[in-house]
Amino acid sequence: MGILVVGSVALDTVETPFGKITEGLGGSATHFSMSASYHTNVSMVAVVGEDFPEAHLQLLKSRDIDIKGIQKVPGKTFRWSGRYDYDLNNAQTLQTDLNVFESFKPQISADLKNPDFLFLANIDPVLQLSVIEQVSKPKLIALDTMNFWIQGKKDDLLKTIKKIDLITINEGEARLLTGESSLLKAARKVQAMGPKTIVIKQGEYGALLFHEGHVFSAPGLPLEDVKDPTGAGDSFAGGFMGHISKVGKVDLATLKQAVILGSVMASFNVEQFSCDRLKSLTKEDIQERFKLFVALSQFESTY
Amino acid sequence: MGILVVGSVALDTVETPFGKITEGLGGSATHFSMSASYHTNVSMVAVVGEDFPEAHLQLLKSRDIDIKGIQKVPGKTFRWSGRYDYDLNNAQTLQTDLNVFESFKPQISADLKNPDFLFLANIDPVLQLSVIEQVSKPKLIALDTMNFWIQGKKDDLLKTIKKIDLITINEGEARLLTGESSLLKAARKVQAMGPKTIVIKQGEYGALLFHEGHVFSAPGLPLEDVKDPTGAGDSFAGGFMGHISKVGKVDLATLKQAVILGSVMASFNVEQFSCDRLKSLTKEDIQERFKLFVALSQFESTY
Repeated sequence: MGILVVGSVALDTVETPFGKITEGLGGSATHFSMSASYHTNVSMVAVVGEDFPEAHLQLLKSRDIDIKGIQKVPGKTFRWSGRYDYDLNNAQTLQTDLNVFESFKPQISADLKNPDFLFLANIDPVLQLSVIEQVSKPKLIALDTMNFWIQGKKDDLLKTIKKIDLITINEGEARLLTGESSLLKAARKVQAMGPKTIVIKQGEYGALLFHEGHVFSAPGLPLEDVKDPTGAGDSFAGGFMGHISKVGKVDLATLKQAVILGSVMASFNVEQFSCDRLKSLTKEDIQERFKLFVALSQFESTY
Repeated sequence: MGILVVGSVALDTVETPFGKITEGLGGSATHFSMSASYHTNVSMVAVVGEDFPEAHLQLLKSRDIDIKGIQKVPGKTFRWSGRYDYDLNNAQTLQTDLNVFESFKPQISADLKNPDFLFLANIDPVLQLSVIEQVSKPKLIALDTMNFWIQGKKDDLLKTIKKIDLITINEGEARLLTGESSLLKAARKVQAMGPKTIVIKQGEYGALLFHEGHVFSAPGLPLEDVKDPTGAGDSFAGGFMGHISKVGKVDLATLKQAVILGSVMASFNVEQFSCDRLKSLTKEDIQERFKLFVALSQFESTY
């Protein structure tokens, strides 16, 4: 199988200067999977409440995402609401109701225990570690985290980080985790914690890849309209991991292209609310946007 | 001749978390020229006071910069002092003493009236226009400006912008000038004001080039140590214009490489206080760093 992703499925209420959506399909595992589904097979492990709309599950299935690992349990689905101002880089959380997500204990069923690639979306590092312990060693274990865990559960996070191959983290979090303002120094410090590959997400500015001694920078694509940045990081991770899983190996050339594919998918994600833009892309849409990134960043290298 | 630059020469007192310099050689025309001098011939037009240290003039001369256009007049040299916190993207101005710069009226002498390339560093747009009117049409006129003029002299600025081919502006200023939060939309609006080429500077994140319908993104090079960002934009412009002048034409391929060379020079500039790092670079230093930018941004473009 391709990728196993463990994370959240949520109902998001989001307001930006460009509109509002109420209880749209959201969550880290959702954005990740919708994005990755264009590149590889994905199986989700997550939890929802009894109130979770069947239509959302159907949408995931329509993208050939394996949702057998989404448990439906008594109670309400995780809800998040937030707002973005004109500076779309920072979300202001208005309300978080964990609901059934509060007691989420990911159980990996027998048929999901042998993933080629494992993505641990942003959840409690203790749960992330429990997932690692339940699967047989994948080709690559990647993890996403956030300031909440860096500040509140740093020891647990460090224990989990030791076991992984790759981390995706935004630049503020990288600085918070390491105490270094230089991202180059921060990346080296994170490498010393375990993972040899670090992806630092920079919002509209793109992403930096640190792999062993190499550094690569993917640009942010200047967009006409950014409607809703929610899930940008997760759809980035989905395109990134999806491409690695499709190629089936983890070398520098693949990782570089994967960062670009991650950026391609994130650039689609932010063009509409929720996962709306990721519902019905075509191969051609993705190839065309990949070419935009080529034009955006390639230059005559003889000097 | 190569480039004519008109701008400021100053004595800068700068404090960052990494050190302090008192009355170091600064000013927009200075950083620009020191940087451009590695690529082409540069003539400076600027003003200094009687207190201006002879050693600074000697330094400029040692880089083969033509300083005949630097007038020494009675009074004190322009002084600026500022501070940067850990977020090195934003300077906090502590004091500005314009001194002799306050009554600066650039007079272009006969031997400087035929530049191939003209760079109008960040000064009053009325003075920038007066320079344009004094020279015979160069191959390219480029201009830098800042929020101070956008807010205080917008009509004059728009009049000047109409006459130029290229503008360098930082992202906040591009948004301020156009009222657009999307940089793509902002660039198009600026193009409608006159210049067909826009360079949007993004500090540590690099720079965006908009040329006719094309968009190009130069990455910021992740650096071990950034000591002093003062002059980053001007040394960027110096490398950028220097390369264009060296190549002698203004097509997309040249402009793309020029943005990279600008980024190369800016990355050196910020590694030391004042112009210290730009005093004694070698061709090999520049080529080596250019290669870092190639490795940083090139990826397999077949997908």
